[in-house]
Amino acid sequence: MKYGIALFPSKKLQDQANSFRMRYDSHYALIPPHITIKEPFEVNDEELPLLLNTMAQIAENAEPVTIDIYKVDTFYPQSHTIFFKIREHKTLTYLYEEFHNEPFSINDKYGFIPHVTIGQDLSSQEHADVLGQLKMHKIEHQETISRVQLLYQLENGAWTVYETFRLGKEV
Amino acid sequence: MKYGIALFPSKKLQDQANSFRMRYDSHYALIPPHITIKEPFEVNDEELPLLLNTMAQIAENAEPVTIDIYKVDTFYPQSHTIFFKIREHKTLTYLYEEFHNEPFSINDKYGFIPHVTIGQDLSSQEHADVLGQLKMHKIEHQETISRVQLLYQLENGAWTVYETFRLGKEV
Repeated sequence: MKYGIALFPSKKLQDQANSFRMRYDSHYALIPPHITIKEPFEVNDEELPLLLNTMAQIAENAEPVTIDIYKVDTFYPQSHTIFFKIREHKTLTYLYEEFHNEPFSINDKYGFIPHVTIGQDLSSQEHADVLGQLKMHKIEHQETISRVQLLYQLENGAWTVYETFRLGKEV
Repeated sequence: MKYGIALFPSKKLQDQANSFRMRYDSHYALIPPHITIKEPFEVNDEELPLLLNTMAQIAENAEPVTIDIYKVDTFYPQSHTIFFKIREHKTLTYLYEEFHNEPFSINDKYGFIPHVTIGQDLSSQEHADVLGQLKMHKIEHQETISRVQLLYQLENGAWTVYETFRLGKEV
């Protein structure tokens, strides 16, 4: 089965992201607005318990994540994906690195660009238009996220949350 | 904010439910297939920590839930909702009762009919047609669910998982 690891921001930020996603994001109906920590990866049923235990430990050793959105950006020319760009922060980098280390699959292809996608699979023309419009908005938002989620993908492409882990030690 | 409490069944059952929901369920894109334990209820930010703590305790004292789907049924004439009917089981009833007791809001309006919705907001004609078709399928499925989820609703009607709780004591 295909799993993924993501953070869900506050309702306020999700609602704001959805106001764009409903028009521009082909994945709008498949998953709520999120910050991907680990792209989809295959896990079989035997591997799952180890990954769950490791995830619990990583979460416990982590700190709540600082989210600081400071602009709209694009992955162009790699893709026509438009997103809220999140400032790099050690709390985010920690999660990314831990979830790309044994027993999780390694990533040596891409760097980590933390973001919330608000548009994807746009045509060249749409991409240029939407980006032009959004660049004029002042997009700034700060918050702290205290949970990380393990999800799996259904056959229709939609994602179901399997388990959440609180970041940091229980108080 | 509006919260709800639900169980998500296995990918296998969700995929099967979605094969019907994609055609018949107006909520298809808003939430994956699920078993509602508590209908949407309002929680303000100050109440949330107490509810989370109570939920953790209820989950710890609970047992994993036995799901036994044995037929397709309808809420007609109350509504044109079609669902996989789940046999009553003490593990399910326990969760339902605990989540309709202080500090959670009480429900004295309806009884608990555990189910997975596969069609809703159908016209009379559609409802009759779909029900007729589905009644000919043999729908049987058993599984155990070991997590319960607290979700909140976004402005677009979609649901985000806030936290999951494992059912039973940690081993």
